[in-house]
Amino acid sequence: MAKAELVFQPYGKRLEVEAGRTVLEVARHIGVSVSSVCGGRGLCGKCKIIVQDGESHLSAPTKAERQALSREDLKNGFRLACQAVVKGIGTITVEVPSESRVDQQKLLLKGLERKVELAPAIRRLTLSLDKPSLADAKSDVDRLVEAANSATGFKLKVDHEALKQIPHVIRKGDWTVTVTLWKNGEITAAEPGETHGLYGFAVDVGTTKLAGYLVDLVNGKIAATASMMNPQIPYGEDVISRIKFIMENPDNIAKLQQSVVEGVNQLIREACMKAKTTPANICDITVAGNTAMHHIFLGVPPNYVALMPYPAALQSSVDVKARDLALDVGYGAYVYTLPIVSGFVGGDAVADVLATGINMADELSMLIDIGTNTEIVLGNKDRLVACSCASGPAFEGAHIKHGMRASSGAIEQVWVDPETFEVGFKTVEDDKPRGLCGSGIVDVVAQLLKTGLIDRSGRLSRKVDTPRLKANAKAAEFVVAWKDETSVGNDIAVTQGDIREIQLAKAAIYTGASILMKKFGVKAYDVQRVFLAGAFGTYVDPQNAKIIGMYPDVPLERVHFIGNTAGSGARMTLLSVDARKTASDIARRVEYVELGADPDFQSEFLKATYLPHQESERFQSVSRLLGKAARAS
Amino acid sequence: MAKAELVFQPYGKRLEVEAGRTVLEVARHIGVSVSSVCGGRGLCGKCKIIVQDGESHLSAPTKAERQALSREDLKNGFRLACQAVVKGIGTITVEVPSESRVDQQKLLLKGLERKVELAPAIRRLTLSLDKPSLADAKSDVDRLVEAANSATGFKLKVDHEALKQIPHVIRKGDWTVTVTLWKNGEITAAEPGETHGLYGFAVDVGTTKLAGYLVDLVNGKIAATASMMNPQIPYGEDVISRIKFIMENPDNIAKLQQSVVEGVNQLIREACMKAKTTPANICDITVAGNTAMHHIFLGVPPNYVALMPYPAALQSSVDVKARDLALDVGYGAYVYTLPIVSGFVGGDAVADVLATGINMADELSMLIDIGTNTEIVLGNKDRLVACSCASGPAFEGAHIKHGMRASSGAIEQVWVDPETFEVGFKTVEDDKPRGLCGSGIVDVVAQLLKTGLIDRSGRLSRKVDTPRLKANAKAAEFVVAWKDETSVGNDIAVTQGDIREIQLAKAAIYTGASILMKKFGVKAYDVQRVFLAGAFGTYVDPQNAKIIGMYPDVPLERVHFIGNTAGSGARMTLLSVDARKTASDIARRVEYVELGADPDFQSEFLKATYLPHQESERFQSVSRLLGKAARAS
Repeated sequence: MAKAELVFQPYGKRLEVEAGRTVLEVARHIGVSVSSVCGGRGLCGKCKIIVQDGESHLSAPTKAERQALSREDLKNGFRLACQAVVKGIGTITVEVPSESRVDQQKLLLKGLERKVELAPAIRRLTLSLDKPSLADAKSDVDRLVEAANSATGFKLKVDHEALKQIPHVIRKGDWTVTVTLWKNGEITAAEPGETHGLYGFAVDVGTTKLAGYLVDLVNGKIAATASMMNPQIPYGEDVISRIKFIMENPDNIAKLQQSVVEGVNQLIREACMKAKTTPANICDITVAGNTAMHHIFLGVPPNYVALMPYPAALQSSVDVKARDLALDVGYGAYVYTLPIVSGFVGGDAVADVLATGINMADELSMLIDIGTNTEIVLGNKDRLVACSCASGPAFEGAHIKHGMRASSGAIEQVWVDPETFEVGFKTVEDDKPRGLCGSGIVDVVAQLLKTGLIDRSGRLSRKVDTPRLKANAKAAEFVVAWKDETSVGNDIAVTQGDIREIQLAKAAIYTGASILMKKFGVKAYDVQRVFLAGAFGTYVDPQNAKIIGMYPDVPLERVHFIGNTAGSGARMTLLSVDARKTASDIARRVEYVELGADPDFQSEFLKATYLPHQESERFQSVSRLLGKAARAS
Repeated sequence: MAKAELVFQPYGKRLEVEAGRTVLEVARHIGVSVSSVCGGRGLCGKCKIIVQDGESHLSAPTKAERQALSREDLKNGFRLACQAVVKGIGTITVEVPSESRVDQQKLLLKGLERKVELAPAIRRLTLSLDKPSLADAKSDVDRLVEAANSATGFKLKVDHEALKQIPHVIRKGDWTVTVTLWKNGEITAAEPGETHGLYGFAVDVGTTKLAGYLVDLVNGKIAATASMMNPQIPYGEDVISRIKFIMENPDNIAKLQQSVVEGVNQLIREACMKAKTTPANICDITVAGNTAMHHIFLGVPPNYVALMPYPAALQSSVDVKARDLALDVGYGAYVYTLPIVSGFVGGDAVADVLATGINMADELSMLIDIGTNTEIVLGNKDRLVACSCASGPAFEGAHIKHGMRASSGAIEQVWVDPETFEVGFKTVEDDKPRGLCGSGIVDVVAQLLKTGLIDRSGRLSRKVDTPRLKANAKAAEFVVAWKDETSVGNDIAVTQGDIREIQLAKAAIYTGASILMKKFGVKAYDVQRVFLAGAFGTYVDPQNAKIIGMYPDVPLERVHFIGNTAGSGARMTLLSVDARKTASDIARRVEYVELGADPDFQSEFLKATYLPHQESERFQSVSRLLGKAARAS
């Protein structure tokens, strides 16, 4: 045996590997999903594995591992998969513990959607052709095109794959043929006889998830939906990790592109199965994604998005043949990608605006799409400004000691009794707790602030007497779930460090909102509607989010949850070519504000790290509430 | 050993095969070219092989073989490769004799070409872009497109592959970039800095040969040429055999398409090597071919071309991405295919007209492109009529006992002494004779007529006393080369049957010409120019061709050899978009005449089988000549 063999439990997957590869690389290679936020740089500590056997065939623990893992963990065989390098010849068995698994996350599919008139880019047309004769031996294609031109009044081209089908198709249909027309400019498909049923597929390509919507383009209704984790996650959990991966090797973009395309193909198959149709019946596709996801989906390098001055490679919308992207749908179908605004304000933000219609409203609206990068758009029918805030992955559970995505067993809602400090919580799918997801952490921080367990600077109290408040040498922490209540065998707590992470994250978002308001010359009270978009923005408690100062202090009734509007926007462009024009118009109109270039950025950010803010007059309603709470306790 | 092993000599190629496959199928599979005109139906007798060993592992000779092969041949191990089926388990060694090999034929590359103003579909444009900054973070592609739009005044799209290149390219060139524009509508490529050199490639896809021309689109000159036998030949030597092959199995068209595309890719590599450039520098391709070759090249089924009323699948010119056809050239390049007229008058005929300019001339011209199908176009600037004649493959040596293509050792010119009946001949490459090619056979028939060895009905004389005139029970024949002079070990003769084949072939051509003249209301003397196109039309002796009545009796000085004008026409469309418009105009204008539908067709054809014609007044100059010869002898 010339190679080592690596076995992954509980999956039972095994692979012979050459020395020099990390366990994480091998896991990715054979499709074992191991969580990793930092892209394999030993920083996030999320890729824990337990070595069951063959430890001697792995490299010794690195400095990064000694920092990320407790002495006890190390003794119990814990390693970081990104650090442990296969070196010997023999069998190594590792276990992927449940907290390191990338499981199916709670995925949000629904979103606010403005009604648009049904006018898709494609339509069907049934033609009856004259049979050829010696006196009229016109060619099949020219015969078909002339009939289609005369029926439509347009001058149609023919897709190359359609060309190949036409001679057989028109005979199979006994000279009756149904053609699919794209934008009244091209015949993209031909089918024998009179056919019915016309489908499109809208995709929201998120950094974390892919959501697909099979739309019946005859009645405009959703026929089926499907969603999955973005299969690019093993290559890096956030946009920057994936861009770094692409920078490492020019071939890597093809790997990422292939992986997302395979994911979308899977969604297409799944949705078609649910709707009892086939992918070949899908004649149009629309895609919304943030700039990096959009670029990678098209195979366009996103490298320079990560470098000053952060230009996108491509802003305008694009029409490209589905087959050029290896998407398995109807043979002549096009894919339309929504335009983007800038390197960090993408097609998802354009879709958000399209779905909410804030670009057409008299009222001033603020749209906040919270994620690792949070996009904020502020404006009305006259003007739109936007920025991107580096809010980081804390709301997705990363950089948080017991943080996790909103998957089964994640604590998503938390209540702290102001008198006893006892804790109530709710988990995703009501499973035993495995960790805390973003909305749960926000709840904890807000409740700790309300109950006086932390002060406005975010420091955990050392005075309050409750067993949940534990202070050790390194850092204090607040226990949310006791060891016995959990499925992971230890207390689930929020540490002082976690609170700092949340402060930084929310400060980033608030700073963006505040600089946009300054650019627009308005104050919080002028903002008539606040739209919280995206999964986190839907599950977070709006009151608690306001208490910690995540968004400007506006009356709660002005706050709206709009769900996955990136998906809605993609669907709207599938239903209507006018919506595509509007999307281009939005992308052109939005003024992008580079936050780092604003002279007030640093000071605004520092002040915003306070809870809810250093200048309490900016959060008068929260201040009143906190004062009341303080008085009550 | 579970399979039989088949060894082909003199190539030494071997393959393990399962029982049930014919020797011809196996030969095709491993790339041994065995001649076959009938497409493996046992009719043409061209795929002779000699079994050297393992005869018992082959099926017994079929009825077709007993008809095609003499008893002696059968005794000596001759078989037809299309009939001999592998049945046993063991080694079978066969020899492909020289007469069954498909060797490199004399290929004609040059052709008459009208000068056109250099205005190709593609051009290069060098742009200097502003670098992005925080204040101007426009995307790379939008930046480039805006600069190109403003430099050209057009609204340009961007090819999807070009999209992927642009971000790296513009940085590599330090914000100077050279783009390739196609028809002022699309950016098909981008290169760093200021680049020079712009190439196109024109292809003539013939049934028998492929000819390619690498053209420098900066100066309009041919940079290199390359040619080869059409690699589809093993699937059938003529158009009908290949269409039948496609009809057998829907997958077969892809096989034929792949084979011609691989051939063209080989020509491209060869020509680029000669010109010291690379295929990536080829930014445009134009293709002319007869209808079936054109259809197969595009992957469009030609099946119905072979069935009443013989409609083409596609007449109009087509622009298709080179990559969609798997052609290895510059990534965004298009392929333009010349339009065709009908199922049997193809893009090669359109190219012939384009190259000769008969569509713009005051004089009445007749263009004859002689092949298995002979296309004839008659007309001037006011009117063009055309037909296709089923002249058959006799002029290419098929259906002729000792017929062969114009490759090494083919007798191409023949002289018969009117007194001694002794024979002089010239062979291709002055090799020892292997057989007779088309021009040689025409010479023989004309000389036999002049010397009285055959009469006007084509019957070989039984009266003249010469050892060359042999009469056996089956058929009479005239020996052209004695056994000892040849490389094949037997006499090379023209049989009574061969003469009948030539009579039928030339009658087909003359009938077409005569019906076109009738449609046009003109007589032979009104035809001011006769253009003979194609390889056979270039090497045939025009006087001898007229003596046998192949084309109308016009003064010899009106007859012009124009060579490979299909290639010339393809080159013209590469040099000029106006030439493409003219080609479309020609294809639209030409009135196609279906000969079989003409009431006079049968009687015209019968009369034309005489030498030169039953109505001698139609060939007054030839009649005078024959009379003189008769008087002299």
